Amino acid sequence: MSPIPNPRILFNHIPEGFPEIDKTLIYDTTQTIDIDNVSLDGGFLVKTLDLSIDPYMRGRMRDPAIDSYLPAYPLGQPLNGFGLGVVIRSEHPEVKVGEYVCGFNVDHAHYFVRKDLFLLEKVDNKFNLPTSAFVGVLGMPGQTAFYAWHEYSHAKPGETVFVSAGAGPVGSLVIQLAKAQGLKVIASAGSEEKVAFLKEIGTDVAFNYKTTNTLEVLKKEGGIDVYWDNVGGETLEAALEAAKLNGRFIICGMISGYNSADGVPVRNLWQIFSKSLTLSGFIVNRLEERWGKKFREEIPARIASGEIKYREQIYEGLDKVPHAILDVQRGKNTAKAVVRVSKE
Amino acid sequence: MSPIPNPRILFNHIPEGFPEIDKTLIYDTTQTIDIDNVSLDGGFLVKTLDLSIDPYMRGRMRDPAIDSYLPAYPLGQPLNGFGLGVVIRSEHPEVKVGEYVCGFNVDHAHYFVRKDLFLLEKVDNKFNLPTSAFVGVLGMPGQTAFYAWHEYSHAKPGETVFVSAGAGPVGSLVIQLAKAQGLKVIASAGSEEKVAFLKEIGTDVAFNYKTTNTLEVLKKEGGIDVYWDNVGGETLEAALEAAKLNGRFIICGMISGYNSADGVPVRNLWQIFSKSLTLSGFIVNRLEERWGKKFREEIPARIASGEIKYREQIYEGLDKVPHAILDVQRGKNTAKAVVRVSKE
Repeated sequence: MSPIPNPRILFNHIPEGFPEIDKTLIYDTTQTIDIDNVSLDGGFLVKTLDLSIDPYMRGRMRDPAIDSYLPAYPLGQPLNGFGLGVVIRSEHPEVKVGEYVCGFNVDHAHYFVRKDLFLLEKVDNKFNLPTSAFVGVLGMPGQTAFYAWHEYSHAKPGETVFVSAGAGPVGSLVIQLAKAQGLKVIASAGSEEKVAFLKEIGTDVAFNYKTTNTLEVLKKEGGIDVYWDNVGGETLEAALEAAKLNGRFIICGMISGYNSADGVPVRNLWQIFSKSLTLSGFIVNRLEERWGKKFREEIPARIASGEIKYREQIYEGLDKVPHAILDVQRGKNTAKAVVRVSKE
Repeated sequence: MSPIPNPRILFNHIPEGFPEIDKTLIYDTTQTIDIDNVSLDGGFLVKTLDLSIDPYMRGRMRDPAIDSYLPAYPLGQPLNGFGLGVVIRSEHPEVKVGEYVCGFNVDHAHYFVRKDLFLLEKVDNKFNLPTSAFVGVLGMPGQTAFYAWHEYSHAKPGETVFVSAGAGPVGSLVIQLAKAQGLKVIASAGSEEKVAFLKEIGTDVAFNYKTTNTLEVLKKEGGIDVYWDNVGGETLEAALEAAKLNGRFIICGMISGYNSADGVPVRNLWQIFSKSLTLSGFIVNRLEERWGKKFREEIPARIASGEIKYREQIYEGLDKVPHAILDVQRGKNTAKAVVRVSKE
């Protein structure tokens, strides 16, 4: 077969505020690939199926001189991130044609070659779930929720947890884990439609933070023992204010500040010592060793049985990546954002 | 003996910013006490010797409608706090004349009666240390340093700790505990004279934060594993910026915000998840059960031997309480502030 186009999403410009379509990120169709003959050098060729679009990606669109926990995207190169693909050629002894590979090393391109399984793992889809589930509820967001909830919540039945961005892929699994453990769950989201989903998955007190005052809700409900923070800023301030003694705060993300150069100020951190609070930040892959096995044993079965629910918003086609990224940064996506690059 | 004056410090007015001498706090000499005949009702009469003046006291000078971890001072009543006195009369079976009582329930008055040992304990001064030591390095500040360091630092030899307000009674014990454990210690203070004391107690990198940029120092020294925060605000921001992966932050206090109604903003809390940091707040008496015994076994002996050094600034006379409180809030005291009310 002769070379075919290999469309890619290139990182083209470092944004100051929100990323801009066709400036920050470019859909490039100039490259071609000969999938029958491209050199594998002992590795394997992957056809990309599903890409996870996540809040953290904004942090990689930075000047590489700024150090952070994940490397900056190099200018002019394809984005990469969490995704899933199917192997279509292989010279690698452990990777066979037709197998799925999934993880943090998937290019935003139709095809890509890898020499090894660094940041990738083979997926055993024994419950025949949709492949997109492996980049969402079974992928990085689901692992984030599961690992950190078990590691840091120290949750006891009867306690109260507040989850911000509760309708997202991380928050919605946290809510369901907490409910299954007998907690009272308060959760916020940014639209009535998301609030309806919060109720559907068992949230006791679901509210739209754009129309309802977060602090008033938290106080009316008698305070919180655990806070799962996806948001930072004013929401974190309200949670600090409403925390009970010995509260545990799991600091998962702070999307309210990702697109502002100055960050979003939090003014009442004295609540930390005043109430003996613990705030725990974490990086999900550092918890893999402790919780990965339990996650893979439990969660796919609980999804297949319908006990755990999840939602996705599928963007069809690689060219939709910039739109999906912007929706996620602006909170406009209605569910876990997945770009379907190809069907199998 | 006929009644004698019993001077007291009364809480007279809720301050908005810094407390004001003769307005917020008043030295009142109108009350008298007949120390031979005052009713003890089964309790005991204490002659106050030493009063600890601490940053947290500002938090009690508030509207009692505002809930917090320590009760508000009632208007028109004497201040109380951590202190030490000698028992001069007793009807209590466990408390004898001549014994010292020490703790969080000492009135800012020459004499006071207690029915029981609630928030007080008897002091065994077996090394014959100055009584003032029991309200400083052996009192609440020393316990704060010792208990929380052992509970939260997870310190390993070779790691680096940064201590803000390092010349204070809490910070200076933290520094000496960390040095004894083989850590590299960076510490800041607000005058050259305090910086000299930091060096005297073994600080590896001591600097004046008023003349030297904190973040530059922390970066130059290669970052920090542990941060002991007495300050909050910009100093906490610098520590977040300079933290290494898996850093531990012990949030002991945030004096930079105590006298501002709006609090001092911290803008880079995303470092918490970016670097997997843990921030632990605590209330010292909740750690008493775990660490109190070890503290009383170890620290008096280490002070008596001269291994652990401490400094005090003695204010002579109860009437100096308001001045001492203001000095502490403004950072003008040169060492642990103690008001000596009476000598034995």
